[in-house]
Amino acid sequence: MNKKIKVSVVGGSGYTGIELLRLLVLHPNVEMLHITSRNDSGKFVYDIYPSLRGVLSNKFVDPDKAELADSDLVFFATPSGIAMNYVEKLLSKGVKVIDLAADFRIKDIKEWEKWYEMSHKCPDILEKAVYGLPEVNRDLIMNAQLVANPGCYPTAIQLALNPLLNEGLIDPGSIIADAKSGISGAGKKNQVDLLLSEASENFKAYSINGHRHLPEIEENLSKNSVLGKVKVLFTPHLLPISRGIHASIYVNCLKEFDPSNIFKKYYANEPFVDVLKKNSCPDTKSVRGSNTCRISYYKVPDTKQLLVLAVIDNLVKGAAGQAIQNMNIMMKWEETLGLQSIPLVP
Amino acid sequence: MNKKIKVSVVGGSGYTGIELLRLLVLHPNVEMLHITSRNDSGKFVYDIYPSLRGVLSNKFVDPDKAELADSDLVFFATPSGIAMNYVEKLLSKGVKVIDLAADFRIKDIKEWEKWYEMSHKCPDILEKAVYGLPEVNRDLIMNAQLVANPGCYPTAIQLALNPLLNEGLIDPGSIIADAKSGISGAGKKNQVDLLLSEASENFKAYSINGHRHLPEIEENLSKNSVLGKVKVLFTPHLLPISRGIHASIYVNCLKEFDPSNIFKKYYANEPFVDVLKKNSCPDTKSVRGSNTCRISYYKVPDTKQLLVLAVIDNLVKGAAGQAIQNMNIMMKWEETLGLQSIPLVP
Amino acid sequence: MNKKIKVSVVGGSGYTGIELLRLLVLHPNVEMLHITSRNDSGKFVYDIYPSLRGVLSNKFVDPDKAELADSDLVFFATPSGIAMNYVEKLLSKGVKVIDLAADFRIKDIKEWEKWYEMSHKCPDILEKAVYGLPEVNRDLIMNAQLVANPGCYPTAIQLALNPLLNEGLIDPGSIIADAKSGISGAGKKNQVDLLLSEASENFKAYSINGHRHLPEIEENLSKNSVLGKVKVLFTPHLLPISRGIHASIYVNCLKEFDPSNIFKKYYANEPFVDVLKKNSCPDTKSVRGSNTCRISYYKVPDTKQLLVLAVIDNLVKGAAGQAIQNMNIMMKWEETLGLQSIPLVP
Amino acid sequence: MNKKIKVSVVGGSGYTGIELLRLLVLHPNVEMLHITSRNDSGKFVYDIYPSLRGVLSNKFVDPDKAELADSDLVFFATPSGIAMNYVEKLLSKGVKVIDLAADFRIKDIKEWEKWYEMSHKCPDILEKAVYGLPEVNRDLIMNAQLVANPGCYPTAIQLALNPLLNEGLIDPGSIIADAKSGISGAGKKNQVDLLLSEASENFKAYSINGHRHLPEIEENLSKNSVLGKVKVLFTPHLLPISRGIHASIYVNCLKEFDPSNIFKKYYANEPFVDVLKKNSCPDTKSVRGSNTCRISYYKVPDTKQLLVLAVIDNLVKGAAGQAIQNMNIMMKWEETLGLQSIPLVP
Repeated sequence: MNKKIKVSVVGGSGYTGIELLRLLVLHPNVEMLHITSRNDSGKFVYDIYPSLRGVLSNKFVDPDKAELADSDLVFFATPSGIAMNYVEKLLSKGVKVIDLAADFRIKDIKEWEKWYEMSHKCPDILEKAVYGLPEVNRDLIMNAQLVANPGCYPTAIQLALNPLLNEGLIDPGSIIADAKSGISGAGKKNQVDLLLSEASENFKAYSINGHRHLPEIEENLSKNSVLGKVKVLFTPHLLPISRGIHASIYVNCLKEFDPSNIFKKYYANEPFVDVLKKNSCPDTKSVRGSNTCRISYYKVPDTKQLLVLAVIDNLVKGAAGQAIQNMNIMMKWEETLGLQSIPLVP
Repeated sequence: MNKKIKVSVVGGSGYTGIELLRLLVLHPNVEMLHITSRNDSGKFVYDIYPSLRGVLSNKFVDPDKAELADSDLVFFATPSGIAMNYVEKLLSKGVKVIDLAADFRIKDIKEWEKWYEMSHKCPDILEKAVYGLPEVNRDLIMNAQLVANPGCYPTAIQLALNPLLNEGLIDPGSIIADAKSGISGAGKKNQVDLLLSEASENFKAYSINGHRHLPEIEENLSKNSVLGKVKVLFTPHLLPISRGIHASIYVNCLKEFDPSNIFKKYYANEPFVDVLKKNSCPDTKSVRGSNTCRISYYKVPDTKQLLVLAVIDNLVKGAAGQAIQNMNIMMKWEETLGLQSIPLVP
Repeated sequence: MNKKIKVSVVGGSGYTGIELLRLLVLHPNVEMLHITSRNDSGKFVYDIYPSLRGVLSNKFVDPDKAELADSDLVFFATPSGIAMNYVEKLLSKGVKVIDLAADFRIKDIKEWEKWYEMSHKCPDILEKAVYGLPEVNRDLIMNAQLVANPGCYPTAIQLALNPLLNEGLIDPGSIIADAKSGISGAGKKNQVDLLLSEASENFKAYSINGHRHLPEIEENLSKNSVLGKVKVLFTPHLLPISRGIHASIYVNCLKEFDPSNIFKKYYANEPFVDVLKKNSCPDTKSVRGSNTCRISYYKVPDTKQLLVLAVIDNLVKGAAGQAIQNMNIMMKWEETLGLQSIPLVP
Repeated sequence: MNKKIKVSVVGGSGYTGIELLRLLVLHPNVEMLHITSRNDSGKFVYDIYPSLRGVLSNKFVDPDKAELADSDLVFFATPSGIAMNYVEKLLSKGVKVIDLAADFRIKDIKEWEKWYEMSHKCPDILEKAVYGLPEVNRDLIMNAQLVANPGCYPTAIQLALNPLLNEGLIDPGSIIADAKSGISGAGKKNQVDLLLSEASENFKAYSINGHRHLPEIEENLSKNSVLGKVKVLFTPHLLPISRGIHASIYVNCLKEFDPSNIFKKYYANEPFVDVLKKNSCPDTKSVRGSNTCRISYYKVPDTKQLLVLAVIDNLVKGAAGQAIQNMNIMMKWEETLGLQSIPLVP
């Protein structure tokens, strides 16, 4: 019990915030300190989220009044552009920080400022931030004080492609990622096209001429590519479901190889990546509520084409679950601690 | 062709507005004049609703700039409290008006002001307004200049109960209406609990201690009750579907009778009320997109209890379709004109 | 570790079966022995349910070839009419049995045979079976060798009504239960009306003139009624969701009382019953995936009417979760063991 | 009225059958003769499909007992492999035939027999059948006695690509079609993965290593390609909606061109193809229940890549609506007759 750390969540009332809370209340080594929400401060968390009645007694507090520095670790589940105002002080006091938004995901500041339409507040800190994809950066994460938790689409796409790029097996310049996300990926927003009346019984692409996750995908894939800069044609679509990301990724192979062996080499010991046999079709429900990414593939006969399929729960491996995985690594705990929940099927 | 009338829709960008447009563009006797929207004025209607591309070339106009009085008939598909500011002028110029909101549905002004939390602007006009439930008030509607289109829940519940109350067969004081509505019934609103992430895979009651449709239901049922004032325990629920109302209504019978005969007596010649055989279970999809109300019932053996089931599409028979039915009656046209569409199944 | 017991699941490929497995694989005191399935025997469980990949390595075995008597406890997640063929042998060998179907839920054999349309195979064993609603029968369950796990609708309805009936506060003869269930309640069946194309965007009542859960509800409510036999008008409806039961229950009060106090008296210390404040509207998603039942109520002013609302997850508190709760009680373990999962929201 | 023709539907109880009926009952020039169903013969159509109560009084008849040759035109809404047993006799009696299944869609018999795993019964008739994609084959359809109605995926994909291939603007060998279909596309089948409990809140690819629509797509695209044989990597996915197909198609351009001009050239006068402005994202709901195909595109800057998006309702333009469009052409009627319904939104 004495190994429990004090954890705060800034922005606890959005979907990644509530998902963090769902997972953290069962984490054996965590004690919830502050849970902030500008709009709901003063209310019990369970008054906004009755699903937490009986397991979490905290009230939301105003982020400006919470002594965040009293925490051992702070999660930012805020919109992009918030965490960068807080981290300098927190880091200076020795607090560990995991940002679930985009403030520290892209090293190329110009690119970041173009896509996020604001000035970055702490470029020097950005340099030191570690991109929190454990399957790639586990060692760096272990020693990081500030981790940038990857975006949901980027997580699914990188887990599908990193091994192939890292082995120099595919053409980095001809990648197509046709990706589909459940609606919770857009956050808990008052946006007309997220209403059930609009989004149910419906399907469409969106942001086809530019989505904020694209620079994150390309920059981070490129780091793992032995054949140079990666270029992705990324088409996001809106699924009429709450949770789940499905990526259908088309690449051109540069040589003959057995994808099964490659994926096995990288993922055989990964607790949260599950590679199915070839030609399988992983479904989003098989990972719903869990931190697992399932991957499969289809090698098109008589061509160089390879289709890689990957599914995750956008709120877990694509956000809160991965953040907790990062916390476990930063704390040198068992990486799966608090993340053993089984997908909810049906 | 020369019998076409000029029709305007005030508040054309909400769900009842767009549903009016979906039906009116195919109505052979109607020419669209003004379609107003404060927020979207200047835009083509089809830019907001691509489903109308190619069939409707109007732009939204600002309601304050539209010469509504040039219309032969104006539909108000606005929130409650708007139409009452416009009708005096329109009526004085001979324009017919159908209000799809609640401004003229309740004759008891005090009751109305209590539930809608505003002062009524034209009590004298309210007196002359006709409650537009054709199956009850057809003759009055025919000669009305101002019709109050009934609410969605009230339509389903009245169609189920009016015959029984009018024959004095059930206890008017012990009625329970357990009703369920699709989400479009709440309108096209930025309201968090209408988001797909909240409302899908979910079900709940709401406003159990008082819903605005209750006084409308009780006042109008009472008018058709030969045994005095009607009291209803009305419990609305939110269904995770776009369209559809299902009412399960529990009443106590005062004598032995065959509900089949009673419903036949009232509805055999009604074009939009379809009575199924006893113990059937009408489903909301069987009326989706159509102006039909389907009714069935179950007489509980060895008791006085009768269960009446009724389904409608809340946007059609519960709003826009019934409004067009009222227009047809007011214009002395065939009552089914423009309303022949078949439910969309599956 | 040495306190682990060997558990088998008969009928592991249906929805209650898979839900048992989802929960049992995380139960600290359980070791899975046999998981049977006539159709899928020989296959890995995770080949049918990929959500269990990596956490359960069992294969399905043929129920006729499995040595079930080697188990410490056997769950029957089979259709009704199966368990009664196996229990005699199992009980004689000292194996504990929990039947999730209806074979032992109703003591009135004639009634059972009428509703389930078969002869009961072991009336003498039926007599000794304990009805496994822990909130009522905890002490009996603790010493039982055979537990009849309650049906899903009956669980929700009894938890809502037992305290009121046990205190003699409501009229046992005028109860109306308007209940709605998600589709998984019908099981994993090839039945046309359960197809997404039929059931989504749809809502209807079903079995209004008689549902198999009615005799179970009435018999068990009657046992807890101090004012005699209970009669329920029970109307089930099909919700277009996978999981969740919502019951809206209408009763007539016999005297003045504060429901809050009554519910508190019965449920203050119950780990899986959560009573909300009056006029609240519990939603099914707030219990999705968890073993919790949430209850609220609305006392209709100036009448004797009381509306009680109750929600559960039909597969958890309405089936597999309650079965595990019963196992925990039978084994004298902490009652919440393996059942701490937080509802999946959104 | 004297121009009405007698129409029969073979296989009237499946989803394409019921959709034909939904549209045909409002078609001014059609009189329903026989509606066959092996399983439901003797029942009123409206007993199986209550949505048709009041508008269609036919009973289902056994296909072997119906005098189909008394019809002027017969639609086959049967599984593949049925129509080929009937057409010889019907054609010999001068009856026109439209097959909504695959029996006459592919001219390459070997290919057909490989994919459909049966022998073709009438290769000589197959030769004369016309592939019923009006936007390509209108003149041939006009004089055809037997029309093979295209598959749903093939319709969307061909409408998106034909103009580009016919102008020689894209590489016919590097086409990727990432397509998603609503569940009704699988038919009204007792198949576990089509249950709401399985398919809702879920998304997956399927048949990635070979789908029956692939040879139809490649053969027919090739006919319209001026640069030779077309090869498509076709990935179908299952959407958790009833109706709708969305195709995201990736092609490599061979030269600079403005897709807007090309699409305008081919579709400006097409009543059922609507080209949106570039970078738009058509959604499936905007065509739900209508015979319209909406197309848009995105030209990726600094590359040769072009993304074309196309949506249809799989049961209308992808099946029954297109079949009626073909009937209208064969009968030299106005092509839009009976097909003017507006998409059901929301």
